[in-house]
Amino acid sequence: MNNRVEIRYCTQCRWLLRAAWMAQELLTTFDQEIGELTLKPGTGGIFEVWADDTLIWSRKEQGRFPEITELKRLVRDEIAPGRSLGHADRKEGPAQDTDASAAPAKPSAG
Amino acid sequence: MNNRVEIRYCTQCRWLLRAAWMAQELLTTFDQEIGELTLKPGTGGIFEVWADDTLIWSRKEQGRFPEITELKRLVRDEIAPGRSLGHADRKEGPAQDTDASAAPAKPSAG
Repeated sequence: MNNRVEIRYCTQCRWLLRAAWMAQELLTTFDQEIGELTLKPGTGGIFEVWADDTLIWSRKEQGRFPEITELKRLVRDEIAPGRSLGHADRKEGPAQDTDASAAPAKPSAG
Repeated sequence: MNNRVEIRYCTQCRWLLRAAWMAQELLTTFDQEIGELTLKPGTGGIFEVWADDTLIWSRKEQGRFPEITELKRLVRDEIAPGRSLGHADRKEGPAQDTDASAAPAKPSAG
Protein backbone atom coordinates (compact mmCIF):
# COMPACT_ATOMS: atom_id res chain seq x y z
CA MET A 1 0.00 0.00 0.00
CA ASN A 2 3.05 2.24 0.03
CA ASN A 3 3.93 2.15 -3.62
CA ARG A 4 3.90 5.33 -5.63
CA VAL A 5 3.01 5.64 -9.30
CA GLU A 6 3.44 8.78 -11.37
CA ILE A 7 2.16 9.53 -14.87
CA ARG A 8 3.75 12.49 -16.64
CA TYR A 9 1.81 13.69 -19.66
CA CYS A 10 2.02 16.47 -22.22
CA THR A 11 -0.74 19.06 -21.89
CA GLN A 12 -0.02 20.51 -25.34
CA CYS A 13 -0.75 17.07 -26.81
CA ARG A 14 -3.96 16.88 -24.74
CA TRP A 15 -3.03 13.61 -23.12
CA LEU A 16 -4.74 14.31 -19.80
CA LEU A 17 -7.72 12.08 -20.59
CA ARG A 18 -5.45 9.20 -21.55
CA ALA A 19 -3.30 9.68 -18.46
CA ALA A 20 -6.34 9.92 -16.18
CA TRP A 21 -7.88 6.80 -17.70
CA MET A 22 -4.66 4.84 -17.12
CA ALA A 23 -4.54 6.23 -13.59
CA GLN A 24 -7.99 4.86 -12.85
CA GLU A 25 -7.15 1.47 -14.37
CA LEU A 26 -4.02 1.19 -12.23
CA LEU A 27 -5.73 2.38 -9.04
CA THR A 28 -8.52 -0.14 -9.61
CA THR A 29 -6.23 -3.09 -10.37
CA PHE A 30 -3.63 -2.31 -7.69
CA ASP A 31 -5.99 -1.13 -4.98
CA GLN A 32 -3.98 -2.97 -2.33
CA GLU A 33 -0.58 -1.90 -3.61
CA ILE A 34 -0.68 1.73 -4.75
CA GLY A 35 -0.43 4.23 -1.93
CA GLU A 36 -0.65 7.24 -4.21
CA LEU A 37 -0.84 7.98 -7.90
CA THR A 38 0.30 11.35 -9.21
CA LEU A 39 -0.70 13.01 -12.47
CA LYS A 40 2.01 15.42 -13.52
CA PRO A 41 1.40 17.79 -16.44
CA GLY A 42 4.34 18.47 -18.73
CA THR A 43 5.15 19.64 -22.23
CA GLY A 44 7.12 18.61 -25.31
CA GLY A 45 5.42 15.29 -25.98
CA ILE A 46 6.23 13.70 -22.64
CA PHE A 47 4.39 10.53 -21.66
CA GLU A 48 6.12 8.61 -18.92
CA VAL A 49 5.00 6.20 -16.24
CA TRP A 50 7.06 5.82 -13.10
CA ALA A 51 6.61 3.18 -10.39
CA ASP A 52 8.50 3.73 -7.18
CA ASP A 53 10.96 6.05 -8.92
CA THR A 54 11.66 3.58 -11.71
CA LEU A 55 10.79 4.66 -15.24
CA ILE A 56 8.67 1.83 -16.61
CA TRP A 57 7.36 3.53 -19.75
CA SER A 58 8.63 6.37 -21.89
CA ARG A 59 6.78 7.19 -25.08
CA LYS A 60 9.94 8.75 -26.46
CA GLU A 61 11.91 5.56 -25.93
CA GLN A 62 9.20 3.12 -26.98
CA GLY A 63 7.76 5.24 -29.79
CA ARG A 64 4.18 4.50 -28.73
CA PHE A 65 1.76 4.39 -25.83
CA PRO A 66 1.54 1.20 -23.80
CA GLU A 67 -1.45 -1.09 -24.09
CA ILE A 68 -3.23 -1.10 -20.76
CA THR A 69 -2.56 -4.79 -20.06
CA GLU A 70 1.10 -4.24 -20.94
CA LEU A 71 1.27 -1.29 -18.57
CA LYS A 72 -0.32 -3.31 -15.77
CA ARG A 73 2.25 -6.07 -16.21
CA LEU A 74 5.07 -3.53 -16.02
CA VAL A 75 3.62 -1.92 -12.91
CA ARG A 76 3.04 -5.34 -11.36
CA ASP A 77 6.63 -6.41 -12.06
CA GLU A 78 7.82 -3.34 -10.18
CA ILE A 79 5.47 -3.14 -7.20
CA ALA A 80 3.90 -6.59 -6.78
CA PRO A 81 6.08 -9.12 -8.60
CA GLY A 82 4.37 -12.19 -7.17
CA ARG A 83 0.89 -11.19 -8.15
CA SER A 84 -1.19 -12.70 -10.95
CA LEU A 85 -3.12 -10.33 -13.15
CA GLY A 86 -5.57 -12.91 -14.47
CA HIS A 87 -6.41 -12.43 -18.12
CA ALA A 88 -3.91 -9.61 -18.46
CA ASP A 89 -1.20 -12.22 -17.89
CA ARG A 90 -2.36 -14.53 -20.63
CA LYS A 91 -0.90 -12.41 -23.39
CA GLU A 92 2.80 -12.45 -24.11
CA GLY A 93 4.95 -10.96 -21.37
CA PRO A 94 6.69 -7.62 -21.86
CA ALA A 95 10.12 -9.22 -22.06
CA GLN A 96 9.17 -11.36 -25.05
CA ASP A 97 9.22 -10.45 -28.68
CA THR A 98 5.95 -9.22 -30.08
CA ASP A 99 6.81 -10.93 -33.36
CA ALA A 100 3.60 -12.51 -34.63
CA SER A 101 5.51 -15.63 -35.63
CA ALA A 102 6.02 -16.33 -31.92
CA ALA A 103 2.29 -17.11 -31.54
CA PRO A 104 1.46 -20.76 -30.83
CA ALA A 105 1.27 -22.81 -34.01
CA LYS A 106 -2.13 -24.05 -35.00
CA PRO A 107 -2.52 -27.82 -34.71
CA SER A 108 -2.00 -29.41 -38.08
CA ALA A 109 -5.18 -30.64 -39.69
CA GLY A 110 -5.46 -34.42 -39.61
CA MET B 1 3.12 25.57 -12.02
CA ASN B 2 4.56 24.35 -8.75
CA ASN B 3 1.36 23.91 -6.82
CA ARG B 4 0.38 20.52 -5.53
CA VAL B 5 -3.15 19.20 -5.14
CA GLU B 6 -4.08 15.95 -3.43
CA ILE B 7 -7.42 14.15 -3.35
CA ARG B 8 -7.84 11.46 -0.71
CA TYR B 9 -10.77 9.16 -1.30
CA CYS B 10 -12.32 6.07 0.27
CA THR B 11 -11.96 2.95 -1.86
CA GLN B 12 -14.57 1.07 0.20
CA CYS B 13 -17.08 3.79 -0.73
CA ARG B 14 -16.02 3.48 -4.40
CA TRP B 15 -15.20 7.15 -4.71
CA LEU B 16 -12.36 6.70 -7.20
CA LEU B 17 -14.46 7.78 -10.17
CA ARG B 18 -15.61 10.91 -8.38
CA ALA B 19 -12.07 11.73 -7.26
CA ALA B 20 -10.66 11.12 -10.74
CA TRP B 21 -13.32 13.29 -12.35
CA MET B 22 -12.55 16.15 -9.95
CA ALA B 23 -8.84 15.63 -10.64
CA GLN B 24 -9.40 16.08 -14.37
CA GLU B 25 -11.56 19.17 -13.84
CA LEU B 26 -8.88 20.76 -11.67
CA LEU B 27 -6.02 19.84 -14.00
CA THR B 28 -7.95 21.30 -16.94
CA THR B 29 -8.91 24.54 -15.21
CA PHE B 30 -5.58 25.10 -13.47
CA ASP B 31 -3.31 23.89 -16.27
CA GLN B 32 -0.89 26.75 -15.61
CA GLU B 33 -0.91 26.43 -11.84
CA ILE B 34 -0.97 22.78 -10.82
CA GLY B 35 2.42 21.09 -10.94
CA GLU B 36 1.09 17.74 -9.79
CA LEU B 37 -2.16 16.21 -8.64
CA THR B 38 -2.13 13.11 -6.48
CA LEU B 39 -4.93 10.60 -6.03
CA LYS B 40 -4.54 8.87 -2.69
CA PRO B 41 -6.73 5.87 -1.84
CA GLY B 42 -7.92 5.58 1.73
CA THR B 43 -10.64 4.00 3.84
CA GLY B 44 -13.29 4.86 6.42
CA GLY B 45 -15.26 7.36 4.35
CA ILE B 46 -12.42 9.77 3.72
CA PHE B 47 -12.87 12.41 1.05
CA GLU B 48 -10.45 15.28 1.38
CA VAL B 49 -8.92 17.79 -0.99
CA TRP B 50 -5.61 19.38 -0.15
CA ALA B 51 -3.97 22.28 -1.98
CA ASP B 52 -0.34 22.98 -1.12
CA ASP B 53 -0.70 21.13 2.18
CA THR B 54 -3.80 23.08 3.18
CA LEU B 55 -6.97 21.08 3.72
CA ILE B 56 -9.59 22.85 1.60
CA TRP B 57 -12.33 20.23 1.72
CA SER B 58 -13.21 17.48 4.17
CA ARG B 59 -16.39 15.52 3.62
CA LYS B 60 -16.44 14.65 7.30
CA GLU B 61 -16.35 18.32 8.29
CA GLN B 62 -18.69 19.61 5.61
CA GLY B 63 -21.07 16.65 5.61
CA ARG B 64 -21.18 16.56 1.79
CA PHE B 65 -19.13 16.56 -1.38
CA PRO B 66 -18.21 19.93 -2.89
CA GLU B 67 -19.86 21.14 -6.05
CA ILE B 68 -17.23 21.34 -8.73
CA THR B 69 -17.45 25.14 -9.11
CA GLU B 70 -17.20 25.48 -5.34
CA LEU B 71 -14.13 23.26 -5.29
CA LYS B 72 -12.50 25.29 -8.06
CA ARG B 73 -13.04 28.51 -6.14
CA LEU B 74 -11.45 26.98 -3.04
CA VAL B 75 -8.48 25.70 -5.02
CA ARG B 76 -8.15 29.06 -6.76
CA ASP B 77 -8.23 30.93 -3.44
CA GLU B 78 -5.31 28.79 -2.29
CA ILE B 79 -3.07 28.56 -5.35
CA ALA B 80 -4.05 31.44 -7.68
CA PRO B 81 -5.91 34.05 -5.60
CA GLY B 82 -5.88 36.73 -8.29
CA ARG B 83 -7.38 34.61 -11.01
CA SER B 84 -10.93 34.85 -12.35
CA LEU B 85 -12.78 31.62 -12.94
CA GLY B 86 -15.37 33.05 -15.32
CA HIS B 87 -18.83 31.61 -14.83
CA ALA B 88 -17.70 29.58 -11.83
CA ASP B 89 -17.25 32.89 -10.04
CA ARG B 90 -20.77 34.12 -10.72
CA LYS B 91 -22.39 31.88 -8.14
CA GLU B 92 -22.33 32.71 -4.45
CA GLY B 93 -18.94 32.38 -2.80
CA PRO B 94 -18.15 29.44 -0.56
CA ALA B 95 -18.19 31.55 2.59
CA GLN B 96 -21.82 32.57 2.12
CA ASP B 97 -24.98 30.81 3.23
CA THR B 98 -26.62 28.54 0.73
CA ASP B 99 -30.00 29.44 2.20
CA ALA B 100 -32.46 29.68 -0.69
CA SER B 101 -34.01 32.81 0.83
CA ALA B 102 -30.78 34.61 0.01
CA ALA B 103 -31.60 34.39 -3.71
CA PRO B 104 -32.48 37.70 -5.39
CA ALA B 105 -36.13 38.63 -4.93
CA LYS B 106 -38.32 38.56 -8.02
CA PRO B 107 -39.49 41.98 -9.17
CA SER B 108 -42.99 42.64 -7.89
CA ALA B 109 -45.68 42.47 -10.53
CA GLY B 110 -47.04 45.89 -11.44
